[in-house]
This record gives sequence, C-alpha cells and structure tokens, in this order.
Amino acid sequence: MKRLGVGVVGLGRIGVLHAEVFASRIERARLVAVADVREEVAKSVAERLRAKAYTSYEKMLKDPEVEAVVICTPTFLHKDMVVRAAEEGKHIFCEKPLTVTVEEAKECLRAVEKAGVKLQVGYMRRFDYAYRRAKEKIEKGEIGEPLVFVGIARDPGAPPGWAADPSKSGGIFLDMLSHDFDMARWLMGKEIREVYVIGGAYLYDEIREKGDLDVVMINFKFEGRAVGFIHGSRKSVFGYDLRTEVMGTEGTVYVGTIPDPMFAHGRPDGVVYGGVQWFWKRFYDAYVDEDIHFVECVLEDKKPLITGEDGLRAVEIGEACWRSYREGRPVTLG
Amino acid sequence: MKRLGVGVVGLGRIGVLHAEVFASRIERARLVAVADVREEVAKSVAERLRAKAYTSYEKMLKDPEVEAVVICTPTFLHKDMVVRAAEEGKHIFCEKPLTVTVEEAKECLRAVEKAGVKLQVGYMRRFDYAYRRAKEKIEKGEIGEPLVFVGIARDPGAPPGWAADPSKSGGIFLDMLSHDFDMARWLMGKEIREVYVIGGAYLYDEIREKGDLDVVMINFKFEGRAVGFIHGSRKSVFGYDLRTEVMGTEGTVYVGTIPDPMFAHGRPDGVVYGGVQWFWKRFYDAYVDEDIHFVECVLEDKKPLITGEDGLRAVEIGEACWRSYREGRPVTLG
Amino acid sequence: MKRLGVGVVGLGRIGVLHAEVFASRIERARLVAVADVREEVAKSVAERLRAKAYTSYEKMLKDPEVEAVVICTPTFLHKDMVVRAAEEGKHIFCEKPLTVTVEEAKECLRAVEKAGVKLQVGYMRRFDYAYRRAKEKIEKGEIGEPLVFVGIARDPGAPPGWAADPSKSGGIFLDMLSHDFDMARWLMGKEIREVYVIGGAYLYDEIREKGDLDVVMINFKFEGRAVGFIHGSRKSVFGYDLRTEVMGTEGTVYVGTIPDPMFAHGRPDGVVYGGVQWFWKRFYDAYVDEDIHFVECVLEDKKPLITGEDGLRAVEIGEACWRSYREGRPVTLG
Amino acid sequence: MKRLGVGVVGLGRIGVLHAEVFASRIERARLVAVADVREEVAKSVAERLRAKAYTSYEKMLKDPEVEAVVICTPTFLHKDMVVRAAEEGKHIFCEKPLTVTVEEAKECLRAVEKAGVKLQVGYMRRFDYAYRRAKEKIEKGEIGEPLVFVGIARDPGAPPGWAADPSKSGGIFLDMLSHDFDMARWLMGKEIREVYVIGGAYLYDEIREKGDLDVVMINFKFEGRAVGFIHGSRKSVFGYDLRTEVMGTEGTVYVGTIPDPMFAHGRPDGVVYGGVQWFWKRFYDAYVDEDIHFVECVLEDKKPLITGEDGLRAVEIGEACWRSYREGRPVTLG
Repeated sequence: MKRLGVGVVGLGRIGVLHAEVFASRIERARLVAVADVREEVAKSVAERLRAKAYTSYEKMLKDPEVEAVVICTPTFLHKDMVVRAAEEGKHIFCEKPLTVTVEEAKECLRAVEKAGVKLQVGYMRRFDYAYRRAKEKIEKGEIGEPLVFVGIARDPGAPPGWAADPSKSGGIFLDMLSHDFDMARWLMGKEIREVYVIGGAYLYDEIREKGDLDVVMINFKFEGRAVGFIHGSRKSVFGYDLRTEVMGTEGTVYVGTIPDPMFAHGRPDGVVYGGVQWFWKRFYDAYVDEDIHFVECVLEDKKPLITGEDGLRAVEIGEACWRSYREGRPVTLG
Repeated sequence: MKRLGVGVVGLGRIGVLHAEVFASRIERARLVAVADVREEVAKSVAERLRAKAYTSYEKMLKDPEVEAVVICTPTFLHKDMVVRAAEEGKHIFCEKPLTVTVEEAKECLRAVEKAGVKLQVGYMRRFDYAYRRAKEKIEKGEIGEPLVFVGIARDPGAPPGWAADPSKSGGIFLDMLSHDFDMARWLMGKEIREVYVIGGAYLYDEIREKGDLDVVMINFKFEGRAVGFIHGSRKSVFGYDLRTEVMGTEGTVYVGTIPDPMFAHGRPDGVVYGGVQWFWKRFYDAYVDEDIHFVECVLEDKKPLITGEDGLRAVEIGEACWRSYREGRPVTLG
Repeated sequence: MKRLGVGVVGLGRIGVLHAEVFASRIERARLVAVADVREEVAKSVAERLRAKAYTSYEKMLKDPEVEAVVICTPTFLHKDMVVRAAEEGKHIFCEKPLTVTVEEAKECLRAVEKAGVKLQVGYMRRFDYAYRRAKEKIEKGEIGEPLVFVGIARDPGAPPGWAADPSKSGGIFLDMLSHDFDMARWLMGKEIREVYVIGGAYLYDEIREKGDLDVVMINFKFEGRAVGFIHGSRKSVFGYDLRTEVMGTEGTVYVGTIPDPMFAHGRPDGVVYGGVQWFWKRFYDAYVDEDIHFVECVLEDKKPLITGEDGLRAVEIGEACWRSYREGRPVTLG
Repeated sequence: MKRLGVGVVGLGRIGVLHAEVFASRIERARLVAVADVREEVAKSVAERLRAKAYTSYEKMLKDPEVEAVVICTPTFLHKDMVVRAAEEGKHIFCEKPLTVTVEEAKECLRAVEKAGVKLQVGYMRRFDYAYRRAKEKIEKGEIGEPLVFVGIARDPGAPPGWAADPSKSGGIFLDMLSHDFDMARWLMGKEIREVYVIGGAYLYDEIREKGDLDVVMINFKFEGRAVGFIHGSRKSVFGYDLRTEVMGTEGTVYVGTIPDPMFAHGRPDGVVYGGVQWFWKRFYDAYVDEDIHFVECVLEDKKPLITGEDGLRAVEIGEACWRSYREGRPVTLG
C-alpha cells in the first residue's frame, strides 16, 4: 500500500498532535519528519515518533521522502511557508487561518495553483461528528431552507504568546472567529454579503493595548434571504463555551452545549457541571479525521473539503469585520 | 384585612387567567367584576368566579367596588382604556406592550401621573423564578460587570387574530420582542443606545402582506460598555424556544433551555424531547406573582417593579427597530 | 350547567391548593365548604374563597350542598373519614396513600362499594404531562414490551410533623414511595409479585428513633417477565430529585431530570443549576387536572383513573416492603 | 530517557487501540512488538506502527526487548497468558475481566506475586475524567459519607463472537458489569457484602440458549452502612446509555448522561439527540491514561491503581451474582 510521506513543521501543541496522528492513526500515511526551530523539541518528538528531526523548514522541504507538509507555525509565517512548499511541489495542509491578510491569502492561492499541489486549511470543525450531523441534516433538507445562523464562541481565556498580537494572528476575527465564519458559510451553503460589528476590548488590558478586541458581536446578511449572528468572547470563567445553531423553515439544528453534562456534583448550592473540554480534547477526533481526509485527497487526487478558496473567504470576512468595527457601519462584501 | 377590589377587562386566554388568579390565589384581593364585549363570555366567567359581569368597560369603571383594573384587551385599545381608568381614579395593571406608539405611551404616562394612580405593565418575566435568579446573581455582583446580553425567542407559530396586524399590535418588535427589550434593560441595568436590525418576512405570506416581519436579528449597544443581541422568530417547529443569557466579567447567567428535559423518549433514531411548554404554562407562576405584586403596590403605596416608564422604553426601542430595519442602518436612541 | 358541590377537609398546604382549584379552575365544580379543626384557618380560607367554614367534618358531611368531599387530612385519619363520607353518600377524593394498613384500605373499599359512591385516590403523577406522555408512548407500543422499571425519588428533607411517625403515615414506603409503586404498576401495566428491600435509617436520628427508614432500595419482580427498582431517600441537598424510566424491547421513556435546566449560573467552579421545584410547583398542573378528572367522573358516572383498588394495591406493596426489610428476604405478593 | 519496551497480544479493536497508544502517545514507552494468531493482521499492524510481528505469544515472551505485555485476547485465554508472562518475568497489563472464574484469578495472583512483576487490570473507567472527578469529590469529603451507589449500564446491542458465550466471557456479570462492580468498590471505598439478583434473558434468543442473561438488576449491601444497585441491559435502541451516581450524606455525584447533548435536531416531533458515543470513543482518553499509568508504575516501581486483587474482587462479585440468580436468594460474600 502506498503510504504518503508527511513532514510536520511547528511543534507546538497542535503540531505535536498532528505528528502523533500521522505516526499512528492513518493506514495510508507515514510520519517522515518533524521540524522546529527549537532543536531539542524537534529531536525529542522525532525520536519518540521514529521520524527525522529538522531545525530548518527549507531542509525538510528538500527531503524527497517528504511528499506533503503540515504547517502548524504562527499565522504570520503561513504565507511564506505555503508559497515555498508549493514551489517545491509539496502538498500542503495549513492550520487556520490561512494568512493574516487577504493579499497574502491570494498569494498562497496563486502559488498553489501554479504548482498544482493540494492545499487543505485546518478548519477541523467540518470533521467533528456533531457539526457533520448538522451539515447532513441540512443537506438532506431536514430543516427546510436555512434562514438563521447563530454562533456563540467563548474561549476560556486570552490567547497566549504571538496570538495576542493582531498583527501576527489577525486578531479575534481571524485567530478565533474564522472558525465560525467557516461554519456559517459551510452550514448555510451561502456566502456572507454584509457584516456589522459591535463590541470592544472590555476584558484584558493587554488586548486593548495591542489593538485587538475581546468581546464582539457580528450581525450579518447572507446572499439571498437569510441572516446570521456570531458572538465571540475571550473569556468564559467555567471553560470553553461553543454553540452553533441553524434554523430553517422546517426545523433547527443545534451543536454544542453550555456545560459538559458528563459529570455533575449535586451540593447544597445546586448541581454543578464543568465546562466542555477545551478544543484539543473536544475536537481530537476531528483532527484525526481531517488528517485522514487530507491523505486521501492527495493519494486519490481529490479536492479537499476545505480549499484555499475557503481559507481566503474566511480572511475576507475577517477583514470586513475589522473595517465595520473601525468605521461603525455595516460593510458589504464581494 | 383590606382586600383590593379588582375588575378585569378583556376575557381572552390571559384575561381569564388573571381573573382566576384574583379570584383564588391572592389573600389581599377580590375579583369584583369582569368585562368583555361578548356578553356570553362575560356572564359565564363571572358566574364561575362569583363576580359581576359587564359588557361595557365604561360601566365597570363607574363601579365603586372596582378599585383597580386589569387591561387585557388588544394593544391598540390600551391607550384609551388606560387614560379613562386614570381619569376615574382606578389603579391600572396593563398587559404588554403598553401601547402601539411612543406618542400613545406618553399620553398614558401623563394621564397616570395627573391622576396619581398606580400603573404596572405586564412584563411577567420579571417575576419568573429563573429570570429572578438571574437578576439576583447580577445584582449581587456574582457575574461581575455585565457586558453581553443575548436573547433568543422563537414562538411556535404566527400570532393569531389582531396580533398579526402590526398597526394593531406593534408588530414583532412590540408584540413579541418587547419582552426581550424589557429583560435586556432590567438584567443589564443599562439603557439601550443604538439598534441595528436585519431580517425579513421569510416564513408566512400573511405576515409579509400585512407589513410585519417574522425573522429578525437586533444588534444593540448599551450606554457605557456593553453589547446585546436579540433574535426573534415566529416559528419553532417543536415548540416554544426561549433563551436568555448575560455574560459578565466574572461569570454568565443562562435562562431557558432548548427542549423540556422532563420527558424523553429513547428510540432508534435518538432520544426525543418535547419543547418547553408554551408561555401560559411556562410563566403561570410569574402571572400569579405579578398580580400579587400589583396588589401589594396599590395597598401599600409602593412603586411597581415595572412602571409606565418601563413600558414607554420598550415602545421606544420597538420604534427604533422599525426605523433601523426600514432605513438599513444603525439607529441611535435617547 | 350542573356544577358539582365540593367540600375540602384538612387545610394544610395541599388542602388549600385543592380548595383554590375547585374555587377557580373548574367550570363544572363549585367550592361549597372547607373544614379544618383550626377555626381561624377554616374561616380565613372560606372567606377568601367565598365558601362556608366548618370546624366539624361531621357537620360538613350533613351539608346537602356538599356532594363530594376532598380528604386532605393526615393518613391515619383517612379510613374513618372515607367510611363516614361513603355512609353519607358523598363522592370521595382521598389524598394518597389511601390508608396506613391493608386492613383499613379494605374497609374503605367495602364502604364505598356498599354506598355506590365514587372514590379517587390522589396519585396526581398520573395527570402530569410528562408521566402521561410516558404512558401514551407505552400504550401505543412505542417502546415495545416494557421490561424494566427504574424509579429514583429523593426528597429535599425529612417529612415534618405527623408524617415523620410511621404509625401515622405508613413510613417511607407509604408516605413517599407509594407514588412510585403506583407509577410502576400503571406504566408497566403489570402487578408486582415480589419485593426485596435493603436500606436503613442513615440520615436522621429522629427517623431512626421513630422506627422509619430514610434510605431504601427495592428490587422487584413483576408478574410475567419484567423487573423493577425503586430507590428512595429522605434527603437531597440541592432539592427534589425525581426520575423514572421504563425500558422496553424497542425503546425507553424517561421522566424527570436531575437539575432544573431553566436557570444556570456559569462561574469559575462550573455551571450551577438549581434543583427541580418541589412537588407542589412541579405537579401544580397535575393537581388541577386530577381535580377536573374527579369532577368529570362524578358528573358523568365514569370510573376514576385511580380507583380504591389502586389505592389498596399501593398499601399492599408498602406492607410487603416493610416485611422484606424486617425479615431480610424477598417477599412474595398476591 | 528509559523507555519501556511493550508487546501487545490480541489485535482486536482494543488491542490495536493500545498498540497505537504505546506507539505514539507515551513519552516513556515504545511499542516493540505485536502478536496475533492471524499472521496478516499481525504483520499489517506491525508495519504501520514500526514494530515486530509475532504469531506466537510464546515467542513474543522470549523477546528480550519486550519488558511488558498487554493482554487483549478473549477472557478465557487470560489466565494462561498472565501466568506465562509472570513466569517469564514480564510486567502485565491485562484487559478486564481478569479471568472467567475466581479460581483462575487466584492462580494469576499467585504467579504474579511469585514472579514479583506488576499486574494492572484494564478497568479504564478509573482514568476517565468524569469518574475521576467523582472520586476526587468523594475523597475530599464533598458528598459527606457515601451511602448509595446507583449504576445503570445499557449497551447498544448483544456482544459479538466469543463474548456471547458465558463460559468464555463470564457472561453479563463479568464481561459487562464487572466495570460497574469495580466502580462501586472504588467510588464507595467499601467492599460489597451481599448481592441479590433478578432479571432474565428477555431480549435475545441466542443469549438465552447459551445460558447468559440480558437484563439484570442487582441490589447489594456494602460493609458498614450503605446500599447499592446495578442494572445492566444488553440493548439500548439509541446507543450507549451509561450512568453512575453516588449519594452521600452531604451531596451526590453523577457521571454520565442519557443522550449526547452535543448535537440536537429540532423537528416537528420534538428535539432529537443522539446517544453518547460507544465506549471506545467515550473512553478513548481513559485508555491512553491507563496505559501511561501502567508505564509509570513499572518504571517507577509503584503499585498500579487497579491491582490483581481488584481484578479478583470483580470476579468474586460476578460469581456471587450468578449464584444469587440461580438460587433466587440474597448471597453473602467474603
């Protein structure tokens, strides 16, 4: 059986997760190499997973066993890495968001198209069993015509490190809510045509100082007749609070739940539940399945479920949100 | 013990409910009279509840045993009835919304002030145990500073009769969502300063033809730093779907639940729950408690929890929503 | 319209509730009289609800306007009151359990049969919308053949007053769990043939001293093939915790929920829900509906949903439970 | 870093799961070898995970790189495999239940003790986050003194293959409910002293013919004052239904939930939820964590959380349950 040779760059939490998955969970893939600028990290992961260690992304790109790269570095590095991988003829899985700006995203798409390689963007929620069920119900017409999208996303806390800097991460709209933009477009099957943003930097001084926002609400119109709403917050005191719903003429689908009902403690002040597990537990299977899908698309020359165009759309919506917030008015897209 | 003599006008579903409550559940009140233009209805209810029957509101107002009136007629009749009751020196409980227009609401307030009578508006959710718990937590500082209001209200179906005509009911914003405006103001403890509305008449031809809307989303800014969102729909296929949440810097309160978990049926296609019971079951106790509160306010000369000013505010927000929708832009209040 | 004249005896919490319902919620009934040995209580309730006040049950029985009595006194008084009412030709609604002993229950049945009056026992759960839905699903065959009954009932605290004395109340099996015996028989559509009890007086010294139990588990076999389990506790720190499930060959029905999801507070230690409201709120509508049913049965000469025989069966099961507990072995019924 | 060399025998679903975990998720372990009597399976898994393939367990035991074995074969093979591994000085992780009979379990314990090797039994629920939280609350005294254990376990369907034969699997008590026996002992911190079983083979002809049961209820007494109940069913039409609760004098802990609330579909007949995911998804993280724990215990010479004695206790309870069922009476243990 042909097994795709994969190299992972950027060994943070999510990079290691992808590396472990390619090393053990996918019949048709092998983890060939891992790369990180921190030599110790690269060597330790490589030894444990029986792969080669690189400290140079360029050198890993030259390794002929590496047929595809998985880019898990900070967002502002994505554009150069995608373009270089395409130039070397490597297939590309890129973590979300694709880039910080629309201009960069378009550059990625041009390079990928020119090279004729695959590009998949890591909006793993599309592979989550619950979001997948929602999509299936909608596609089968079980809620009629989708009219309303509501997304609420509250992270447990402020993002760490580079992600706190909107010039590196794209800020709350790209770093965090582009997942919800992708869900809105995918579940509704329609493009977003107008956004209106309200909110502010209410929670953290650091976020305010760096020019990002931490509480936002986005009202949006879809093409045709349908409306949407996304609310994001960089704080949820009890843990991850992620919910999505789509109402149609004949029914509604709901994904997500406020607390995790798997454990409860009845005590005199009430029955206490914990928050849903944070995203790498909540979406672990989705990460596995998106990696399997990527391998299949490359080996069978199929179009990935989440293309470069999808990545570009999310960046476009993010930019429009920033404009609406700064100008205090509804902003039209496309 | 002094017991307040009460007359109820308008013996629809909610009018009868109030009449039964005053007849049996309140130690300090007596049901003296009921009035309805349908003589048969008035007589039947009156006989069952041992009260006098009137077909003329004017005549009931002249009854010296009637010290307070409970107005449960269609909205477009409220203004005249409130003004007349005030002129006769009767205390007034008026079902929501206070009136169809801001101008009418102001006329009510002037008449009430001149007469020195009590006026309470029927936003009964303020008396519901769940909303009350939310309010208590917020007032005690248990969620820190309130920053975000989210309200989702989906009725099982289109409103019947006169309520389907926005010139008589005020349309979706007043007839239905003014409850949520009242909750937003009350729970957040702040006034709304800007609204932006999107939506349409997506569901029912009749609603479109009469000039009302059936799916709307309202983004709004509060005074100071805080944002809000209300979504209303005139259809929910499985039943009443009403949820409200307030996120603060230190916590979040949630009221409402998608299905009613009290009964479930596990069958091969999943575990099926019914919708929460429709409002007069869901809020039965709140109706009882608002009536008790009204009686107390009159007998002890206290200010009602929901004043005429509160009724006016809700009408103002509703009018601003209509303007925002028609002009396609954010509209500032106050 | 013929309206049934009703007299209520025993004006504790539940007696007052019934009196208010007969006074205001039932088209075909009138509250004629109330009786209580406490003169002040009888007079106050009577005045508020426009009924006659009696301090003597015997005198109320002689009132020709009183066609039916509603017995809400302590259990150990039921037998004499039921027998006397039957002798006077009054129809009888008797709160649960029917009596303290099987012998007394049989005496009631004989008196009722001889007099040809109606007797309904107050297992109001049969009128609750959730239990009713369960029953409907089962009767329509939607869970196939019922095989398993599981009932968990935890009260917020120890019973007050006379109910704490098992010689007056029948103890935990009759005073509390006879509701669950009735549900087991009704939902499964089968009689119980063997019980085995374990448990003890773990929680309260007073209960231990009076010879009652506060934590029990009952395993039971139905006639034919099916098994059941009931667990009762006289303590639940966060409030009422009542759940019932019936598993059949093709599905399962669930009634009840641990916390009340209508309100939640997300705070750093988790998301906190309150307990379900205590029984007179939880089952308020069921009380109204059982009273309506009783009136209908009398006026239309129909057999009540819960007969004296049903009341007797519950007492029989309770006695068998006591025997099993005392003798430490399974006990056969019938 | 010292990394423990592990060999996995029995490459069914759970064996492959363990092999993948040892190959990729544990810093201090390496997957050295896999063994299965089906040569093709052994080779395929071995190649993918870069380990050696054996078709003979005996030969794998002789491999000096294999320091510990993970036994995932059918239950009736466990005893010989555990004994042989011990004789070869290998540390042992054995899937549950330890053996089919008490006699076999004792033989395992003797061999392990004589050899001085580690033995851990695979009751992975002890590593599940929800059960772990329950245990932590109980140990900290947050529910007071534990008095009541309730466990409900319904599998989606009948067990396949050898597990359907009680002589090979131990039947429903060992193959399925020994997980719940382990939870009862662990969470309550007390031994079980009496069991009384009712139930039958109600659901499947095959189960009846092979002498196993498919619906059972077990009432049990703990040492000291506390009671318990376990109900198992081999059918749940909508999927896995696993719930556990422990009530103490000061509170209650609940683990598990009827449906999975992560996805819901609101449609005209109600709001439909799916069942909780089947055990290898539900407990995936627990499998990973029990493997990590096993490696730590071996490398740091610590006692495993689940010892051979724990494995023996579960088998003893299972045997007592069989006896109670066959003899129709309560059976005392220990």
